[in-house]
Amino acid sequence: MAVELKDLTKSEENYSQWYNELVVKAGLAESSAVRGCMVIKPYGYAIWETMQRVLDDMFKQTGHQNAYFPLFIPKSFFSKEAHHVEGFAKECAVVTHYRLKNDPEGKGVIVDPDAKLEEELIVRPTSETIIWNTYKNWITSYRDLPILCNQWANVVRWEMRTRLFLRTAEFLWQEGHTAHETREEAIEEATRMINVYKTFAEEWMCLPVIVGHKSPNERFAGAEDTLTIEALMQDGKALQSGTSHFLGQNFAKAFDVKFANKEGKLDYVWATSWGVSTRLMGALIMAHSDNNGLVLPPKLAPIQVVMVPIYKGEEQLNATRARMNKLADEMKALGIRVKIDDRDNVRAGFKFSEYELKGVPVRIAIGQRDMENNTVEVARRDLLTKQTVSQDNLSTYIRDLLDEIQKNIFQKALNFRNSMITEVNSWEEFKEVLDTKGGFVSAHWDGTVETEVAIKEATKATIRCIPLDVKDEEGKCVYTGKPSHRRVLFARSY
Amino acid sequence: MAVELKDLTKSEENYSQWYNELVVKAGLAESSAVRGCMVIKPYGYAIWETMQRVLDDMFKQTGHQNAYFPLFIPKSFFSKEAHHVEGFAKECAVVTHYRLKNDPEGKGVIVDPDAKLEEELIVRPTSETIIWNTYKNWITSYRDLPILCNQWANVVRWEMRTRLFLRTAEFLWQEGHTAHETREEAIEEATRMINVYKTFAEEWMCLPVIVGHKSPNERFAGAEDTLTIEALMQDGKALQSGTSHFLGQNFAKAFDVKFANKEGKLDYVWATSWGVSTRLMGALIMAHSDNNGLVLPPKLAPIQVVMVPIYKGEEQLNATRARMNKLADEMKALGIRVKIDDRDNVRAGFKFSEYELKGVPVRIAIGQRDMENNTVEVARRDLLTKQTVSQDNLSTYIRDLLDEIQKNIFQKALNFRNSMITEVNSWEEFKEVLDTKGGFVSAHWDGTVETEVAIKEATKATIRCIPLDVKDEEGKCVYTGKPSHRRVLFARSY
Repeated sequence: MAVELKDLTKSEENYSQWYNELVVKAGLAESSAVRGCMVIKPYGYAIWETMQRVLDDMFKQTGHQNAYFPLFIPKSFFSKEAHHVEGFAKECAVVTHYRLKNDPEGKGVIVDPDAKLEEELIVRPTSETIIWNTYKNWITSYRDLPILCNQWANVVRWEMRTRLFLRTAEFLWQEGHTAHETREEAIEEATRMINVYKTFAEEWMCLPVIVGHKSPNERFAGAEDTLTIEALMQDGKALQSGTSHFLGQNFAKAFDVKFANKEGKLDYVWATSWGVSTRLMGALIMAHSDNNGLVLPPKLAPIQVVMVPIYKGEEQLNATRARMNKLADEMKALGIRVKIDDRDNVRAGFKFSEYELKGVPVRIAIGQRDMENNTVEVARRDLLTKQTVSQDNLSTYIRDLLDEIQKNIFQKALNFRNSMITEVNSWEEFKEVLDTKGGFVSAHWDGTVETEVAIKEATKATIRCIPLDVKDEEGKCVYTGKPSHRRVLFARSY
Repeated sequence: MAVELKDLTKSEENYSQWYNELVVKAGLAESSAVRGCMVIKPYGYAIWETMQRVLDDMFKQTGHQNAYFPLFIPKSFFSKEAHHVEGFAKECAVVTHYRLKNDPEGKGVIVDPDAKLEEELIVRPTSETIIWNTYKNWITSYRDLPILCNQWANVVRWEMRTRLFLRTAEFLWQEGHTAHETREEAIEEATRMINVYKTFAEEWMCLPVIVGHKSPNERFAGAEDTLTIEALMQDGKALQSGTSHFLGQNFAKAFDVKFANKEGKLDYVWATSWGVSTRLMGALIMAHSDNNGLVLPPKLAPIQVVMVPIYKGEEQLNATRARMNKLADEMKALGIRVKIDDRDNVRAGFKFSEYELKGVPVRIAIGQRDMENNTVEVARRDLLTKQTVSQDNLSTYIRDLLDEIQKNIFQKALNFRNSMITEVNSWEEFKEVLDTKGGFVSAHWDGTVETEVAIKEATKATIRCIPLDVKDEEGKCVYTGKPSHRRVLFARSY
């Protein structure tokens, strides 16, 4: 698993190629032998595991439990909710047979034509249908509500154009599916969960996000309302990073899930669903990294501090190693994830490049002058600066530095994002900002699907969201000139 | 999600039905709309999550990292390893198409015949092939070795007769896949991991297991040696609970994975794989439970202590609740998982039955006399005994009690298991012990596949393992009378 340290393509030359190379060279993921499916490599998976663990704790703190539902969904289930089938039962993996047999002509194995399924099974693209079919048996009375379930799972959507983490045929995600007595309670849940995502994105990923409603055209297939967190990448394109849906009674009606309410009357159950996926890995990479490689927020970095000795000969190595072990133990005692890299078959400079590529937030080098002076050289990945620091109280210094780096990465992304929200008041301005500056364009919109579609066709920009905190403001639609009561955010997006 | 407290079928009347009912009534899992696939309900999943977390920590402590490989495997991959294809490319879920379309006759959606895959994809029944195809690109030199990867994943084997947790079409598991420089190192790894499983089974699940080699006939398809942990269920049948395979160079040869060794010569890489699955849930349930329901080892119980108030009227309830909160806080401070059940719409007796069914290790009831006397009533689930205990220092008392219960459940299972290993020296005795007593039969075997198959056909018993700690002992095969150098363990099994 040698890391290739050849120069990355520069992001300003070809952002897309820079991204693809970075994902592979930093050892996060790679394409597999199966079209559109990726292999998530240990270094990438370690980041995803931390994300999972933090999110899972947040879900449990808000009262949710995990469960597991089948990978396969009977084809007929998709037809039960009219909008859902349009959105999800198109590009998907279809299981038609359940057996292989030896090829009579001796060429390996073939599908056994006698083992055809009566009804085809779809590899889940999302699980509303199978879950609401299950909830039907779990719910009879208001006493059975709410149900607050989440599942961590793989899902498959047969995308034609795929990209590591951002858009893959198979991806990993969590999907929460909740059932409630009232409309109000379900809306409250959907809002609670989008805010959990916002907190996670900002506090852990250093990713500032805008929370808002999707326009009807961009809603989840089967939802009455979709809340989204929208982030901005360094190339000025938006990335939808998590969604939370108020599903109304749509799935309860499709699967006939009724409950006796407190007054003893039967009513359909109210629903939400919400999810984030390995797409967050793509957001994390694209939001912070540079031409030297990844820049990881300390809270998510599998290695927070790497220590590299600078020495000549075994005697110096042994002495330096002993000192590093002592300092590392002090840092580990504070919960810092430290790695000592004392490999003697590669040069220190090679190691420096490798850990820059891998986005390790802090690098500590100890040379022989440091040994004499009781100092170390501390390098920050986010700013690419170096400083000589005393070995005394190094662990608390590093702990504080990691906090500062976490804050700095967020602040930098926030400043960039804020600088990339542009209010425009004319169609010419709209197009010019998109083409020259990018980012979010805040503009008036007449509220119709037709206009949204026309703008998308003309510019490839879509409404990313109607921000929750948008102010009422009278204006004219940037495209049609019709009246509008608030601005919405447009952007080109991933 | 109301728990049904109707009487369970008694295990002595119909063990199989008792098991199925218990799994459903205790809220662990249920069948789904998809044949052979189960829904793991929150209470069952909470146990599985704890198992996962503990095992994952043990894997990491032994140097392993997690990664993720594709759900789908190209059909041709299975034909590359001759034994593997026989074992796994038969009953499996085959993806043949990647698109649905609206039925022109208006009946929902149909498979789009234009969207046929060039090569069918198999939903992974196990991942050796896709992983070794990937490792080929990761390994060039001994410096890239060892690779010590694990993945937590779902797998699908199209079983004809399924049973919740024990045998389902889809199940959850972990699969470790390691690559090594030498035969010795790979064998050492396979042994290390079967011992990790043994430690987990015994210390966490209270499940005594026998570690041994599988006979050639029962080996994993593609392995040179399979190590197993074999447990005994209360009905006298064995259950294979985890396996660890030394794969030799079979998969390296099948996928052409070579490395330059320290002498600069090319050699094929040595491999292991090892896994445990949600089948462990079945073992846990069947090893300890009784006619009142589950008996959960405290270390794995989602709720370790439940507190139930006995009261009349709101005033008494409020006072008792305040006392319970105080006691619960003291227990939580010691890391004990406590639940207070102060529902006022069900009687205490109903709650008692419910938590017995759910296997909660300790129940604490507080009545009004307890309030006056500063006592509580403590009931143990494992022994079904009750005791009056002072409220002073209750938390440390409960902590020690949970330890004692953990030990007692293990000791009881160990005593039973040990009493169910019977040495036999004749074919008549062999058959009689199997039919009247069950359990493990320790017998001489001539070492041939023919004899093993003949014994299986005659008795349904198979060689569960050749124990690692078996003693050399000259004897005669119980079936053929041919010479044998050691006893092996036979049993009927799940």
